[in-house]
Amino acid sequence: MADQTRIILLAHGSSDQRWCKTFEDLAEPTLKAVPEARVAYMELSQPSLEDEVAAAAAAGINEIRILPLFLAAGRHLRKDVPEMLDTYRAKYQLDISLMPPIGNDPRLGFALRDIARDLLEQDHD
Amino acid sequence: MADQTRIILLAHGSSDQRWCKTFEDLAEPTLKAVPEARVAYMELSQPSLEDEVAAAAAAGINEIRILPLFLAAGRHLRKDVPEMLDTYRAKYQLDISLMPPIGNDPRLGFALRDIARDLLEQDHD
Repeated sequence: MADQTRIILLAHGSSDQRWCKTFEDLAEPTLKAVPEARVAYMELSQPSLEDEVAAAAAAGINEIRILPLFLAAGRHLRKDVPEMLDTYRAKYQLDISLMPPIGNDPRLGFALRDIARDLLEQDHD
Repeated sequence: MADQTRIILLAHGSSDQRWCKTFEDLAEPTLKAVPEARVAYMELSQPSLEDEVAAAAAAGINEIRILPLFLAAGRHLRKDVPEMLDTYRAKYQLDISLMPPIGNDPRLGFALRDIARDLLEQDHD
């Protein structure tokens, strides 16, 4: 059933509110289109990843898929986040999967191509 | 003339080759579609931003637009990269503009929405 799975868009987090605003804007079309999508931050910003995992557990969700709003996987996605998820799986008894970072999806590459093409055309208006 | 403007896709860089590979894949559709596009790294990886600025100057390019392969602007894009560009403008006598990070473009948000939607549908196959 659709209401048993939730997607958490995971951003790094920052003490700079302008940084977070970019991620909120980036997530907006997803939050509008996908009712069971949420945004959470790995560190420094709220809501934290654990806040959102706990909220999902309290809402009766039994499966969470974490979609990292990162272009590539570095130490955070290879080590820190998997360790956090091990803790949350045990604590909240949820099925939690960590998906590849969005930068791995070909659709990002196509969007980038369109942005770059427009940028070059602007030079010659 | 089209051959006087070049776009440099600027990624952060990493000592982890898997990290760089993600950016090379991300840039591939752009490099195929836009002849005057290049990839460069801010630090840790090659080619460096300065390598690509110098190559553009040597090729007779007179305008460079830097498109940051970052989702949001943090300290690097607000401070470090602008300082590097001031140095390169003076050293290479080029018109160099720093564009907003790709995460600011609405097309990224739409791509994210499509990725998230597919991810939720996979749960219920």
